[in-house]
Amino acid sequence: MKKTFTLGKLAATITLATAALSTGLGSMAVSAQPTLSEAEFDKATELYFQRCAGCHGVLRKGATGNNLEPKETLKKGQERLEKIIAWGTEGGMNNFDDIFNEEEISLLATFIQMEPPVPPEMSLQMMKDRTKQYVALEDYPTKPLHGRNWKNFFVVIERDAGQAAIIDGDKHEIVAHIDTGYAVHVIKGSENHKTDKNDDTVGRFWYTIGRDGKVNKIDLWQTPDKMLVAETQMAYDARDIAVSGDGKYVIAGGYWPPHFVIMDGKTLEPLKVVSSRGINVDGEYVNEARVAAIYTTPNEPTWIVAIKELGQMWQVDYSDIANLRIEQMDTAKFLHDGFFDPSGRYFQIAANASNKMVVVDTKERKLEKMIDVASLPHPGPGANWVDKECGPVGGTTHLGIGEVSVWGNDPIKHADQAWKLCYTVQTDGAGVFIRTHPDSQYVWADQLKHPEPEIQQSVQVFDKDTREIVKTIRVTEEEGKAALHMEFNQDGSEVWVSVWNRADASNPTGEIVVYDSETLEEITRIKGLTTPTGKFNVYNRMNHKT
Amino acid sequence: MKKTFTLGKLAATITLATAALSTGLGSMAVSAQPTLSEAEFDKATELYFQRCAGCHGVLRKGATGNNLEPKETLKKGQERLEKIIAWGTEGGMNNFDDIFNEEEISLLATFIQMEPPVPPEMSLQMMKDRTKQYVALEDYPTKPLHGRNWKNFFVVIERDAGQAAIIDGDKHEIVAHIDTGYAVHVIKGSENHKTDKNDDTVGRFWYTIGRDGKVNKIDLWQTPDKMLVAETQMAYDARDIAVSGDGKYVIAGGYWPPHFVIMDGKTLEPLKVVSSRGINVDGEYVNEARVAAIYTTPNEPTWIVAIKELGQMWQVDYSDIANLRIEQMDTAKFLHDGFFDPSGRYFQIAANASNKMVVVDTKERKLEKMIDVASLPHPGPGANWVDKECGPVGGTTHLGIGEVSVWGNDPIKHADQAWKLCYTVQTDGAGVFIRTHPDSQYVWADQLKHPEPEIQQSVQVFDKDTREIVKTIRVTEEEGKAALHMEFNQDGSEVWVSVWNRADASNPTGEIVVYDSETLEEITRIKGLTTPTGKFNVYNRMNHKT
Repeated sequence: MKKTFTLGKLAATITLATAALSTGLGSMAVSAQPTLSEAEFDKATELYFQRCAGCHGVLRKGATGNNLEPKETLKKGQERLEKIIAWGTEGGMNNFDDIFNEEEISLLATFIQMEPPVPPEMSLQMMKDRTKQYVALEDYPTKPLHGRNWKNFFVVIERDAGQAAIIDGDKHEIVAHIDTGYAVHVIKGSENHKTDKNDDTVGRFWYTIGRDGKVNKIDLWQTPDKMLVAETQMAYDARDIAVSGDGKYVIAGGYWPPHFVIMDGKTLEPLKVVSSRGINVDGEYVNEARVAAIYTTPNEPTWIVAIKELGQMWQVDYSDIANLRIEQMDTAKFLHDGFFDPSGRYFQIAANASNKMVVVDTKERKLEKMIDVASLPHPGPGANWVDKECGPVGGTTHLGIGEVSVWGNDPIKHADQAWKLCYTVQTDGAGVFIRTHPDSQYVWADQLKHPEPEIQQSVQVFDKDTREIVKTIRVTEEEGKAALHMEFNQDGSEVWVSVWNRADASNPTGEIVVYDSETLEEITRIKGLTTPTGKFNVYNRMNHKT
Repeated sequence: MKKTFTLGKLAATITLATAALSTGLGSMAVSAQPTLSEAEFDKATELYFQRCAGCHGVLRKGATGNNLEPKETLKKGQERLEKIIAWGTEGGMNNFDDIFNEEEISLLATFIQMEPPVPPEMSLQMMKDRTKQYVALEDYPTKPLHGRNWKNFFVVIERDAGQAAIIDGDKHEIVAHIDTGYAVHVIKGSENHKTDKNDDTVGRFWYTIGRDGKVNKIDLWQTPDKMLVAETQMAYDARDIAVSGDGKYVIAGGYWPPHFVIMDGKTLEPLKVVSSRGINVDGEYVNEARVAAIYTTPNEPTWIVAIKELGQMWQVDYSDIANLRIEQMDTAKFLHDGFFDPSGRYFQIAANASNKMVVVDTKERKLEKMIDVASLPHPGPGANWVDKECGPVGGTTHLGIGEVSVWGNDPIKHADQAWKLCYTVQTDGAGVFIRTHPDSQYVWADQLKHPEPEIQQSVQVFDKDTREIVKTIRVTEEEGKAALHMEFNQDGSEVWVSVWNRADASNPTGEIVVYDSETLEEITRIKGLTTPTGKFNVYNRMNHKT
């Protein structure tokens, strides 16, 4: 069963937003405007939603991308807009001529000169109606039903297939492809902070969040055909998910509607919805205030929820969801993704429109500090290690520049270095992901955002002690492919790098390349994957090794 | 300077909400619909905003009143709608034929069949631009500039004049009429929970909130001509205001935009805006989720904020407004107004669509209990006293029935009676306000909601021990006038009752009638007031006597 992405229900209830109508009069002054047929408008709505809304917003108010309301786009006109979509801009917009054909580019250029359709809300009841149990709770196995070492499984996003692959890390074998939501952004494992980290149930359940708001629960103890055990939908557009430290709840964040939803960790039954619409750090109301990222705090009974357009970090306490405690911290725009320091107390997150790393103190539940860094920080899973001079440090790649920023992150024992830039490493190209492991001498950075194929296909590795790049690894040389996202295996002996089959995204022609983490030599290639993206090693993610 | 209420800025920026347009097409199917000229539409918008929006909402989704969107109103049609507006309904809507003329009724009946205009947002910067100091902080007097006993002043809302009267309680003299916002709903005094209640600055400053969102600061130490010391505007439509326990901040709640604003208690400079839009207790998103009431918690550094349409009580901590802590408690719809128990720990508030009194434990910051009571509870300032059988009790009047509900409110020493209905008192008519005083044997209830003039003009007094009504006092016999709202003076020897000149609201023909609190005999009448409504005795309000 291959899932196709459809906006059917969405399109059916779409209504036109406020247009250039004169106030309350029966007569309506409609100027000569770009028009589309209903079918064209629906197609453009779907294309825009899939490829443009992430940066520009469904209401097109702009965030990471520019404002695309008619007041801005009509000034540019059809021809100029088509060129921008096809070729991108110096301001950071990608070229889309390898993703859209000419007709689609023309359609989108017209569409964005028209008033944006406002997607509908989604009530708690609608989410409940979409909740399914594929395996009844009483039928869950009491021990793994296969002989594999599931603690070294990798759960891998197959972005454009709407699937997650389960890969046996010991054997480098694909165990299953599991149907999930469309273009899964993140997958998080079940936790239990109160028990021994070696508690057998920790990391057993994994929760996927699709771009389409679908949440799927995966049971790694099951046989491959039954690993998908439950499903729901909590939004039309979503990005992140997390599990509570006691494993009791799952929380997922919506781009649209802008809200987060707390679900039962066992059944995915939605329990509570909280709006993220609010007033941003500049004092202005934002209707499309999206939940960019959600993380479980290791030491507190809370989640950290990043409200992108508000520039606010919310710390949400799950001890008593009927009397929900939230700290709303004013930080900086636009919050994107982040990671904890090794103590688990401090959360370091990119505010990419402000070129800052924001640090939250989850113990005091307040903003700790903001660190100025280079253009568009984006750490992905992030990296922490120990620098000889600065002590414990964290690092991030940047979407805007080929640089890794490294800052001190131990305010207790290295107060002088804490939350100050320690050093930077120049890489060949702007990247999206950085990664290391406590037992490794090296830090890995990808260069996915560089326009040149050779650089986009290479990752760079630098030494924690010398701070120098020791190797540039060309992960693939095939046309239309790019290298991204690194993940260590259970014992830290291997580094897995994804090869994205961007130009052939509907076929399983992507792969994961496995490297020896010491010699940096290739070990093997795991083939048969469709646009493999984020990879989550069960043991590493559950032990918060970065 | 007489203030007139204008929606000028509002109307100028009004845009039409989503209409019955087909999805994204150039052609628009507009059916034959009721129409108004632009001038008529603007007038109807203003009338609706002043008189209808309070119950039906500016977006007309309904709350206390019915949904008035075209999908509902078009079915009824012009003639039926005019009759409803003129005569009211059995369901609880007032008759408006004594407030609107025939032309206005016709206008409104047409207006509510058209799509509701959506009022604009209000940014923090807009509020800052509207902030004024009439008296510079350095010019504030260091001691009272008059010889009057200002602790027995009454600050009195003159509703339809857009003013507040300052009345000398010792001398029964009007000291000043101060220009405020339109139709002030509530006035709150400066507090300082950390100091002795007899600290001379406690109760010195009073903050008014107008229906039009205007906030005015009054200094009772000033000479009458300079008592108005600062002003701002924090919404287009607002209802309540409160001061922090340390006197540092003022908070006001908006009906539109739906938000609350934290201001500097000294200058009224707006500091922070928080949206109250959210998901209600039924799991549905509410755009117009209005802040109905805000109170300072006596024992915690917090405010209690009632989000009417969400059915949520928010406890907002002002210790660190940059990292704002809020507990969002699921309770019941639609929250209206309430009062503390004598300990100051429990807050008792009416959920009038659920016929419940909701009790919040402000120490634990959670819902304590919900008490089922009769139709549409409305306590106004509320009343606490000691019942011989049930121990400490609280009581409320009801908008929907001539009854006072009385419940136990001491869960520590009278756990068996706590949060259970103790007894009810039948009155002649449904009322809005209840009031008593610790030194008084009696509880007073008005009957403002009863349609018969004789009952509307009478208040009833019952004995705390016998639970029986001991006197029905006809406060006025003049046509077009009604009796409402009671307040005790500083030493508890007098009870002041307002006489509303409803039919002659643009002239100062209202009055306050002063009664002896023991003999229940009339002492005097204070004349020259325009629609006197809520009255706030400085000493009583600062000492939380109810």
